[in-house]
Amino acid sequence: MEKEQQLINPELRHEVELRLERLVPMMKESGMDAMLIGSNANIFYAAGRFFRGYVYLTAQGRAIYFVIRPDIYAKNDDVVVIRKPEQIPAELGLLGIEPPKSMGLELDTLSYSDVERLKKVFAESTVLNASPILRRGRMVKTPFEIRLMKEDGEHQAAVYHKISRLYKRDMTDVEFQIEIERVLRLEGCLGFLRVSGQLMEINLGSVLAGPNADAPSAYDFAMGGSGVSPALPGGACGEIMHVGETVMVDVNGCFNGYQTDMTRVWTIGEVSPLAHKAHECSRRILRVLEEIGRPGTEVRELYDRAVAIAEEEQLSQYFMGHRQHALFIGHGVGIELNEAPAITARCRDLLQEGMTLALEPKFVIPGVGAVGVENTYVVTEHGLESLTHFPEEMQNLL
Amino acid sequence: MEKEQQLINPELRHEVELRLERLVPMMKESGMDAMLIGSNANIFYAAGRFFRGYVYLTAQGRAIYFVIRPDIYAKNDDVVVIRKPEQIPAELGLLGIEPPKSMGLELDTLSYSDVERLKKVFAESTVLNASPILRRGRMVKTPFEIRLMKEDGEHQAAVYHKISRLYKRDMTDVEFQIEIERVLRLEGCLGFLRVSGQLMEINLGSVLAGPNADAPSAYDFAMGGSGVSPALPGGACGEIMHVGETVMVDVNGCFNGYQTDMTRVWTIGEVSPLAHKAHECSRRILRVLEEIGRPGTEVRELYDRAVAIAEEEQLSQYFMGHRQHALFIGHGVGIELNEAPAITARCRDLLQEGMTLALEPKFVIPGVGAVGVENTYVVTEHGLESLTHFPEEMQNLL
Repeated sequence: MEKEQQLINPELRHEVELRLERLVPMMKESGMDAMLIGSNANIFYAAGRFFRGYVYLTAQGRAIYFVIRPDIYAKNDDVVVIRKPEQIPAELGLLGIEPPKSMGLELDTLSYSDVERLKKVFAESTVLNASPILRRGRMVKTPFEIRLMKEDGEHQAAVYHKISRLYKRDMTDVEFQIEIERVLRLEGCLGFLRVSGQLMEINLGSVLAGPNADAPSAYDFAMGGSGVSPALPGGACGEIMHVGETVMVDVNGCFNGYQTDMTRVWTIGEVSPLAHKAHECSRRILRVLEEIGRPGTEVRELYDRAVAIAEEEQLSQYFMGHRQHALFIGHGVGIELNEAPAITARCRDLLQEGMTLALEPKFVIPGVGAVGVENTYVVTEHGLESLTHFPEEMQNLL
Repeated sequence: MEKEQQLINPELRHEVELRLERLVPMMKESGMDAMLIGSNANIFYAAGRFFRGYVYLTAQGRAIYFVIRPDIYAKNDDVVVIRKPEQIPAELGLLGIEPPKSMGLELDTLSYSDVERLKKVFAESTVLNASPILRRGRMVKTPFEIRLMKEDGEHQAAVYHKISRLYKRDMTDVEFQIEIERVLRLEGCLGFLRVSGQLMEINLGSVLAGPNADAPSAYDFAMGGSGVSPALPGGACGEIMHVGETVMVDVNGCFNGYQTDMTRVWTIGEVSPLAHKAHECSRRILRVLEEIGRPGTEVRELYDRAVAIAEEEQLSQYFMGHRQHALFIGHGVGIELNEAPAITARCRDLLQEGMTLALEPKFVIPGVGAVGVENTYVVTEHGLESLTHFPEEMQNLL
């Protein structure tokens, strides 16, 4: 039997404390004595690793890790092995922790039945919603998290540098996507990415070629696509890619549990002047947003400015879709693909230093396909700093 | 603008009715006047396609499809476009449908917050849990669903026939898995599979080589593996595969929204007699279960017989894991990878004709790896009929 591992990697102990300390003031403000974290993404956030179980966090900043599996970690005052959540109150008692008067649970993520079960476990506690606190806590990244995302961005760029070589004449969009996925996986992509909620179902990203970019989809992605099956109606459709069409590649970079989101466009031969114009407009929007995106800027100002520039260039009808329009131009990104804030007209958040945002002002040109650029940025006092460095010009595959 | 599509494909109308009719008696038995289906897997089940929205099913068997997106379907008395669930009661009123006294919602799947929102929408209705009814309804497949699963099994077998050729000396388990995933995708695999709940996070399946098969994982899969990242601790670990080790391939076949689950084992050169013995024991277990698995058989009898055979061959310590043991030997499978029934000692279900089960009696041999076979079966009056036809013998990759 090998030596028992520490659940909290010693090098990460300080990092984990930093994350949890972020939550404590928000808990106090909400009158929450403790919070029980049970969703996969938030366990990974609270422990720096995923395990099955719960993280119990007190408003005094103490964290107890209740591990169901795997049973491979050294036990101590902070790490307790359980089989089921019903054991938690007694274990807390043994540790001298008083039952909480008010208890935060992730009401936006856990199923109704799971929450009802946990309510019975903490029958004496008032239940509050911990989801908004975790969402807001995770929205601003620590320096360590930003380093992980930079690393992801470098891997993702290395993959994008290989994309032109993967194209073969008369390939379908799906075949092209498969070769990109393979290179992505060989670069170290985990082959899975976390998304929040059920409004998105996705493997490693999306490749949209030609008119398929204009097919409305069932999902909440910026762009659509019909998919190849009524079981999963989104993304590539299996058609051969033709001269005069664009190919939008938006395949993700999840190499370490964090993600960067980057989109670039390739073309099959020459594409129409309108497509070029719209692509350049997307780049112009990004340059403006990079400049104004500083701590204190209203998130909705990013949205409004993007919409205004598209309108000024008379491209509104193509902006964020043509037959179906998305009502956001970007989103927070990190452990999950779709984090706070959503960059919409109605967002009430202000930018804060350390937020990480994917901005994706895109256009769909009928008969040609999708154009535009997406980068992942971190908010700094000097504006938005890109984590996804790869040439933004459209590249011709022929 | 192209012609509007029918939401319910006319060829599938009868099929969809058949599925919904299955639910009606269970609704009546539970005193449920109506059910509002809102989870992705169940919408796909209830409509034969996925869309974002809700399916409202009355205990009289009438179904109304409330579509949020995509807005591409022909409207009629059964298909209503909405922006949000708050519009549903008024729309039902226009259709002459009375408010339900009791309302089924998927409490095991929808988030607590989503359920609370729907409860407000149907404030006059008592809320009941629709999840068990949908789980039981989906457990027994229609002939059409079984045909789709047969088709999946054929595709999956075609992929498995190519696996031996993908191996190169000194490959890592992850590299081998990537080449298998590519062939799987080229064969038509959708590149995504649905799982129920958050106890599993998976891309297209698992490749477990050598001692990594003995690493306990955080997930509820039959086998473990450490994974390559603390963000996703399960499956292949990135080590080179060595002579004397087994490679267990359990990559899934989701080609049309349904799945078959099949596992086969390859070896790097010769492996130990114990590994061979355990592999043959797995096959013997399957032969016995295929025979006794008839309508009316207790599900737990399948479990008990498998355990008894492993014990008889003195292989219990390796059965369903070695350092960590799974407490099931199989599971229902269909739209989701993990459907009812779970084949455990405590299951109270009886087998019914048309159930589809993945049976996976597996062993982990320390220092060698995992062995055993998994097939997906349909329950028939003559016993279990396999949907996954591929030679069961271990194949040597050298």
